[in-house]
Amino acid sequence: MRVSRIFIPTLREIPSEAETVSHQLMLRAGLVRKLASGIYSLLPMGFRTFKKIEKIIREEMNKTGAQELLMSAVLPAEFYQASGRWQAFGSEMFRFKDRNGRDFCLGPTHEEIFTETVKEIRSYKSLPLTLYQIQTKYRDERRPRFGVMRAREFVMKDAYSFDRDNDGLDESYKKMHNAYCKTFDRCGLDYIVVDADTGAMGGSGSQEFMVISEIGEAEIAYCDNCGFAANVEKAECIAENSDEKSPIEECCCLVETPDVKTIDDLTEFFGCSSKKFAKTLIYKADNKIIAAMVRGDREVNETKLQNYLGCINLELADPETVMKVTNAEVGFAGPVGLINIDIIVDLEVACMSNFIVGANNTGYHIKNVNIEKDFKPSGIMDIRNIIQGDKCSKCNGTIKIAHGIEVGHIFKLGTKYSNALNCIYLDENGKEKPMVMGCYGIGINRTMAAIIEQNHDKDGIIWPVSVAPYHVIVIPVNYAQEDQMKASEKIYNELKAAGIEAILDDRKERPGVKFKDADLIGIPIRITVGRKIGENIVEFKMRDSSDVMELDVKEAIDLVKKVIKSHDCPNE
Amino acid sequence: MRVSRIFIPTLREIPSEAETVSHQLMLRAGLVRKLASGIYSLLPMGFRTFKKIEKIIREEMNKTGAQELLMSAVLPAEFYQASGRWQAFGSEMFRFKDRNGRDFCLGPTHEEIFTETVKEIRSYKSLPLTLYQIQTKYRDERRPRFGVMRAREFVMKDAYSFDRDNDGLDESYKKMHNAYCKTFDRCGLDYIVVDADTGAMGGSGSQEFMVISEIGEAEIAYCDNCGFAANVEKAECIAENSDEKSPIEECCCLVETPDVKTIDDLTEFFGCSSKKFAKTLIYKADNKIIAAMVRGDREVNETKLQNYLGCINLELADPETVMKVTNAEVGFAGPVGLINIDIIVDLEVACMSNFIVGANNTGYHIKNVNIEKDFKPSGIMDIRNIIQGDKCSKCNGTIKIAHGIEVGHIFKLGTKYSNALNCIYLDENGKEKPMVMGCYGIGINRTMAAIIEQNHDKDGIIWPVSVAPYHVIVIPVNYAQEDQMKASEKIYNELKAAGIEAILDDRKERPGVKFKDADLIGIPIRITVGRKIGENIVEFKMRDSSDVMELDVKEAIDLVKKVIKSHDCPNE
Repeated sequence: MRVSRIFIPTLREIPSEAETVSHQLMLRAGLVRKLASGIYSLLPMGFRTFKKIEKIIREEMNKTGAQELLMSAVLPAEFYQASGRWQAFGSEMFRFKDRNGRDFCLGPTHEEIFTETVKEIRSYKSLPLTLYQIQTKYRDERRPRFGVMRAREFVMKDAYSFDRDNDGLDESYKKMHNAYCKTFDRCGLDYIVVDADTGAMGGSGSQEFMVISEIGEAEIAYCDNCGFAANVEKAECIAENSDEKSPIEECCCLVETPDVKTIDDLTEFFGCSSKKFAKTLIYKADNKIIAAMVRGDREVNETKLQNYLGCINLELADPETVMKVTNAEVGFAGPVGLINIDIIVDLEVACMSNFIVGANNTGYHIKNVNIEKDFKPSGIMDIRNIIQGDKCSKCNGTIKIAHGIEVGHIFKLGTKYSNALNCIYLDENGKEKPMVMGCYGIGINRTMAAIIEQNHDKDGIIWPVSVAPYHVIVIPVNYAQEDQMKASEKIYNELKAAGIEAILDDRKERPGVKFKDADLIGIPIRITVGRKIGENIVEFKMRDSSDVMELDVKEAIDLVKKVIKSHDCPNE
Repeated sequence: MRVSRIFIPTLREIPSEAETVSHQLMLRAGLVRKLASGIYSLLPMGFRTFKKIEKIIREEMNKTGAQELLMSAVLPAEFYQASGRWQAFGSEMFRFKDRNGRDFCLGPTHEEIFTETVKEIRSYKSLPLTLYQIQTKYRDERRPRFGVMRAREFVMKDAYSFDRDNDGLDESYKKMHNAYCKTFDRCGLDYIVVDADTGAMGGSGSQEFMVISEIGEAEIAYCDNCGFAANVEKAECIAENSDEKSPIEECCCLVETPDVKTIDDLTEFFGCSSKKFAKTLIYKADNKIIAAMVRGDREVNETKLQNYLGCINLELADPETVMKVTNAEVGFAGPVGLINIDIIVDLEVACMSNFIVGANNTGYHIKNVNIEKDFKPSGIMDIRNIIQGDKCSKCNGTIKIAHGIEVGHIFKLGTKYSNALNCIYLDENGKEKPMVMGCYGIGINRTMAAIIEQNHDKDGIIWPVSVAPYHVIVIPVNYAQEDQMKASEKIYNELKAAGIEAILDDRKERPGVKFKDADLIGIPIRITVGRKIGENIVEFKMRDSSDVMELDVKEAIDLVKKVIKSHDCPNE
């Protein structure tokens, strides 16, 4: 393709709407354009890279024996109603009625539909079976951002495995795990695999493929000592009592604390560490009100709390509800005297003694409070967020926290959906059993953005060869020099004839403009045709290096072939 | 792939819901499954053929220099409001609001969005430009039917060309025309290209690619004599006065016609041919009421009428409106005394004299009516449907009517969308001009169904080699015979190693079942491994022929390669 003909509207300025490097570069290099909040179109150069990622995924999926198909994006409500997710997805699901008033949604993920489809299988002989699709998904995110990183319409590869039993699931899951590693390796990503919460998807185990990046929205807890890594939502905390447990005071005691609401206010007022306080938070869990307690310096992990409660929606109660339940303003809730409400206490709080809590009375706190003596928890659980410096639950090492972009996610679903939708098979003895399922997703647009986050410099994108929109750009330095133009054309044609994805910058532009654009769009190999073409010599430069080699034309073309061959590019 | 592992849920019985052969076979051969009315999933075998068609289209598009990209399916209302199509699409458009109450639709076609995107181009140097996508489209059809033939979610290749002027458009259009011919040729389709109405899309010219088929929903008028072919919606009628024009009667005359409402009633009552009557139909054209007149034996062509009126919605007026306008029940409308209403008269009616019309009085007609003398038409136009036996407007030959499946459609849009959305460029002199556009669509799912309509027999599908899900099926006759199983396995592996898409029917089934399934799913080449494998001989059979050849294994494999090579298959 000739650069003069490609639709690649590059931008000189950094668009003000874009906060992250990948978003900025995807706009500047003409890869994507925004159509609405969280909704983007892929322009030709972006589309080419997108397709390469898709091909790598397809190749790795097919190698596992998974079979590709394609479900619709518009889906009837009934399947989601059967699984309970019509409610669970809440306002994240795009919903509408058709002309006959029937309820539909835009599929946020397809567990229900694959389960429904596979129901036609009745015999154990047809299992195991793994099906996948590369298909458009929809989630009406509260806060779409970072361009295609958190979008409302995006393309996902989603696979679903169906096995006879848990051992089969383990095997299918392992195959997918390996295929994912291979896929992200081939995409040139530096990633880690972390344990993840199974949350609303249900199931028995789950891992995320995380690309470490400052802009990642996921927090990862990891331990350098033992290699443990988990999403903060999931990472287990252990109860450690840093303070020596002092003898339990016989009486707790009401203290007037006017205008003291935050933990900072409290530590100042009482002159002690925030570790001496226990926060009580009032939540609405579906239609039930509950209280959750963590140490003053900790945060409630709502995922853990939600999993413990088994509720669909969990949110902090509004001030009116807090007033109704505690008889006090927000900031003065406490466990003592809080009746008719379940109080879930974090493991760590259970190790504390003589601590300070809200008094359920605006302007008052209670000190020297002790569990069992002063109130009875309905459950003691790990419900707090792990933080940097905590002890590793596996090895007692020290936890570090990093940010990650979730590009892939694999789940052991078990029989949640097969039970809900009656997806059963007959075993060797003719006995009905539910199929045991797994599900496996890769966000393609997000993977593309993550690759840019990890592969760029101040001048632009540095595409890994395997996913570059084109492999080589041929640039004649001076368009007015006929020999340079002719030689460039010849090299370009030779590359194309050899099946190499090349573009020719045939524009009547200054060399500076051409070099700048080539760097911005990140083509891995640049061949520059300048004055030395008289001696049959061109410049060969890789985008990811500053080295410039002078090679004769044949050497240069051979080197191009060698470089491409050394990368695990998808087949055309 | 081994047949025992492929997810192909075949059906023995013809599903009662399926009226057409392609719908029946797509269900029976396990290519698709219905998820909701007009919404289907493509199962693995269906998906493979779907992808082959997609690849053929992509190859032919790329050869023209068109560039692929990918727009979203969820689209903000504003672009369609700007073009006026937010209203025009009516209830065919799926609409919904996002969580912030903003209006969106599921794109039925993307003219607006491509126009909006290409606006970034400012210079004539970047034109011509043709962009395309292969993307999911949505139309909430009043009557989805025939499986994927008229579905509510379907995949379309839609291309849009942007040119400096009409000459440029003509060239882009011609390129697409040729690419479409090549595409449908490669898909093994027998089709004709017909002139089509430009209708709601606007524009100056349009052609449809029609696969002739009894089940086709489009009616095509064609002339064997001169080669003329057009959609009936579009096909021009000429005015011919079959009756000799008798001298105009001086007075028209009211006749009581109790209980005479239909044309059949009238011809009986008056004892003359239906050609002596002129029907007057009352229409609602947007918010205006109009009358349309055609000869008694003719049908109004609503597309022609709508184009003449330039309205967005055209529908027959309800009985209340007819009563209000004509003072009579439906069946007695006529032009005489019909005031304050435009009367559009068909060309043919304008040639009539002394004809009979409704009297605008329930139970009465008027005879000996003549135009100008008795009423004044507001327009005389070709507004009737052409029918079999009419004269060809080009050569005076005789028109025939056939049914066709519209698989492709190409349009010269002109500047309708570039004007509406301000898509302008600067010409060589720095003068602003609107880009001149064309648009070009292929329905992929429908193409697949059309291929089956034209390629099947009583036993199942007969896939053309170019789009077959797999090219060869290897069938061991007796799974209990180890030599047959081993040889089959070896042939299967050799075929795969040679890059041939082969499947092996490794199921423990009777040969009859295997042959039946192979015929049903329509694999083009069958290699049967039976007793003669002891002499290294197998049977070679093409699905589209009853000939069975006995060949030695090497010959058979060579012949497979030769057959595949002789077809213009898409590249893997």
